[in-house]
Amino acid sequence: MTSNPHRVSEAEIQAFIDNKTKPPGALGRIEALAAQIAGFRNSLTPRITTCDLVIFAADHGIAHEGVSAFPQDVTRQMVQNFLAGGAAANVFAASMGVPVHVVDAGVAGPALTAPTLVSRRIAPGTRSSLNGPAMTDTELSAALRAGAQTVAAVRADALAFGEMGIGNTASASLLAHKLTGLPLDTLIGRGTGVDDAGLDRKKDVLSRAAARCGSELDPDTALSEYAGFEMAMMAGAMQAAAENGQLVLVDGFIATATAVAVLARAPHIRPAMIFCHRGQEAGHRVLLDWLAADPLLDMDMRLGEGTGALLAWPLVKAASAMLCDMASFHSAGVSQG
Amino acid sequence: MTSNPHRVSEAEIQAFIDNKTKPPGALGRIEALAAQIAGFRNSLTPRITTCDLVIFAADHGIAHEGVSAFPQDVTRQMVQNFLAGGAAANVFAASMGVPVHVVDAGVAGPALTAPTLVSRRIAPGTRSSLNGPAMTDTELSAALRAGAQTVAAVRADALAFGEMGIGNTASASLLAHKLTGLPLDTLIGRGTGVDDAGLDRKKDVLSRAAARCGSELDPDTALSEYAGFEMAMMAGAMQAAAENGQLVLVDGFIATATAVAVLARAPHIRPAMIFCHRGQEAGHRVLLDWLAADPLLDMDMRLGEGTGALLAWPLVKAASAMLCDMASFHSAGVSQG
Repeated sequence: MTSNPHRVSEAEIQAFIDNKTKPPGALGRIEALAAQIAGFRNSLTPRITTCDLVIFAADHGIAHEGVSAFPQDVTRQMVQNFLAGGAAANVFAASMGVPVHVVDAGVAGPALTAPTLVSRRIAPGTRSSLNGPAMTDTELSAALRAGAQTVAAVRADALAFGEMGIGNTASASLLAHKLTGLPLDTLIGRGTGVDDAGLDRKKDVLSRAAARCGSELDPDTALSEYAGFEMAMMAGAMQAAAENGQLVLVDGFIATATAVAVLARAPHIRPAMIFCHRGQEAGHRVLLDWLAADPLLDMDMRLGEGTGALLAWPLVKAASAMLCDMASFHSAGVSQG
Repeated sequence: MTSNPHRVSEAEIQAFIDNKTKPPGALGRIEALAAQIAGFRNSLTPRITTCDLVIFAADHGIAHEGVSAFPQDVTRQMVQNFLAGGAAANVFAASMGVPVHVVDAGVAGPALTAPTLVSRRIAPGTRSSLNGPAMTDTELSAALRAGAQTVAAVRADALAFGEMGIGNTASASLLAHKLTGLPLDTLIGRGTGVDDAGLDRKKDVLSRAAARCGSELDPDTALSEYAGFEMAMMAGAMQAAAENGQLVLVDGFIATATAVAVLARAPHIRPAMIFCHRGQEAGHRVLLDWLAADPLLDMDMRLGEGTGALLAWPLVKAASAMLCDMASFHSAGVSQG
């Protein structure tokens, strides 16, 4: 036992990868991904074979200001769809053998009940951040804690996090703006598909909501002022998963805005985060650039639910398999160039 | 029975996809991929759940002109590595549950024997295309036929095709040049990693080899003059798979050059072809642009073996799952925007 355990160095990882039976660098981004995983797990052969998807759902007070193309009821309806296995996230997950956990973080209306639903509702939706904080400090703490408790029950090597909440691109734009100082307008997009008039309205509502608070906020203030319960809960879950040694598969715009908040709270967990795809929601590219993150996939998607994270999961598994199972030039008796 | 069976129209496919529980277009390229699969299989719900990888290996006479960073023995050594399960293609395939078939299409030296090897060798390597045709017309016919016979034994919904052959980027550059008329220099890259002097030598050798024949050749002449046995066999396999209704997952530069030859022989099979990744070998991007193909992944890879095709396979399966299993707004009781 030692107080200074051996850290696998970047050079050791690179040499190990370069000894695999392929020209140096020939697996491109899979090699970089493998190096990230090896560094995070402090092992040349980190075995990553299981992934679970956790979808957090909640409603947003700001949805009542007319910032979405879909009515608020859709959050609840989509939770039922997740529970029935009919949403995109379900069918992608099923095609990859990934179990799905659906969490009610605060859906509007009476509490949902279903045998497979994980009920951690903080309140039936946030208040509108146009007029005051979306949630209290107590609600934020409860949501962060509930996120950590949720992942404590999930033993997978990697966790993909998805979300559902009508209005949540609006909340994510505000959260990201207050955390990064990037211009609000560059962070606002069409969400589920507002038209030009709807986009103008959304920008007007969000600029008024943003004006309530100072320009840059600490992460917990930004979360309580502007986030949704699903985002706060995902933040707690991301941090806990990373601190457990689980890889965190970051999905689209809402998950990335949440990741920005998590990284402001706990910068040391960045090596756990795999940015999975570049979505079409306008602010996503801006936030990824701000993070200097170059995501694995570019599929022109803008759905959320964890769908982009799921599509990247086989790449993560392949990178681990390269480290764990691929032969070296020596072991395979292959000549080097 | 009818002589004019119903064709599922593009409009029907689009309406079916737009009725799934997601904003229109929100699954981006997965929707386009799903539409391609539905069109090819003439079904709104084509169930695509199984994929096999077939790796064709052969040696190239032109390798003796010093066009590769690795010695020719590596082809044979890598076949042994494939059979032992230690190559990148093996570990990617294993991580995705994809069976691997290794075909000796014409590896130099004595015939390889192993219980799991599919032996279809045409000859112990091609002749050098610097001085004359790489193979005879009879050898080409035999290779095309052997490719078709190989896939006849594989019942998967999709087939990923890989290759191994020291010197085969050189052969692929010549083949692509003679099929497309694109400038030869734009199609020549570093292969497994020749240095600047090696690249100059490769360009010199290939320009002399190209000068032997007229500027644009019909596909069978281009194949016999310049291809390798693994490419000719893959061409026969791609065409047979597509004509069987199996999806063809096209890998990197060599597979794409082969696909160009196949499409020149049988343009009707284009809907079967899924271009999987954009590799780093210089000519790959040029050929993909010529084909107006926008591949699914951009992973900076340049290995071949089918590795890029394998990484795209989960996307194909997910697109099929979207069509087959995802709920509609009506079936899930979700409100439309």
